[in-house]
Amino acid sequence: MLILGIDPGSRYTGYGVVRKSGSEIIYVASGRINAARAGDLSERLPVIYEGICEIIEEFEPAQSAVESIFFAKNAMSSLKLGHARGVSLLALQMADVPLHEYPPASVKQAVAGHGRATKDEVNRMVKMTLRLEGELAEDAADALAVAICHCQAAGFADRLK
Amino acid sequence: MLILGIDPGSRYTGYGVVRKSGSEIIYVASGRINAARAGDLSERLPVIYEGICEIIEEFEPAQSAVESIFFAKNAMSSLKLGHARGVSLLALQMADVPLHEYPPASVKQAVAGHGRATKDEVNRMVKMTLRLEGELAEDAADALAVAICHCQAAGFADRLK
Repeated sequence: MLILGIDPGSRYTGYGVVRKSGSEIIYVASGRINAARAGDLSERLPVIYEGICEIIEEFEPAQSAVESIFFAKNAMSSLKLGHARGVSLLALQMADVPLHEYPPASVKQAVAGHGRATKDEVNRMVKMTLRLEGELAEDAADALAVAICHCQAAGFADRLK
Repeated sequence: MLILGIDPGSRYTGYGVVRKSGSEIIYVASGRINAARAGDLSERLPVIYEGICEIIEEFEPAQSAVESIFFAKNAMSSLKLGHARGVSLLALQMADVPLHEYPPASVKQAVAGHGRATKDEVNRMVKMTLRLEGELAEDAADALAVAICHCQAAGFADRLK
């Protein structure tokens, strides 16, 4: 079963695809949609939307995961993030990919073992979990982290059955 | 020339269509897209997006106008508003409807003569400008207001030519 994790942003939207096979989580793909080059915020939205539509078409994920909404640093950055997150979720909804949302602290807990992990810890633990070598871009790492979080939550739900 | 004004909201998205004919501004239609009944935020986004797509298909507006982004009351309401505004702008972009953005104070100035007009003043002046009688819902009034603002700005630009 393929899981798509997304880390929306008004400039860069990270994505990560993993395969959940029993209790194993296997890396499939990751990267980021670069909307920053598209001009102002309204012109970036089709780039993000179409970018996610293409990823869905390529990998046909069975499920998807994003961080749940949270208080960002300030109202203006929240408003911009909301635009990117809105069109990202729209793409998932339009393609009927089931969506799961996890609080940022739960994602950090899932990949690094505690809810206050730094960006560096998350990056390192994502690479360790997925046995990746070399550099991993921050947006891609965050997207893979939420996908891993969903695999673990789904695995836990399975064990309860 | 038909102008579509939009007032995005995560619960109710107002829209207003006016015809600009020389210096005259004529009411065509207005209303609101009710996404509140659709469930949680992610489930509301397709309702807003498809609602705007239908309005564009019905009226084929030559241009569109929305209030520019601004500091909302708090980060959480900004984030939710951002989702609704994001999918609204996406619908306009995907349909190649040119988009114009005006600061809230400019919209109030255009319809009510001063930038600190109350909701009631805006509502009353929109009805007076468009010769409407009876009740006008707040979301629809705000959407018509930004459409009127654009007509006036476009008229001013024409006179400069």
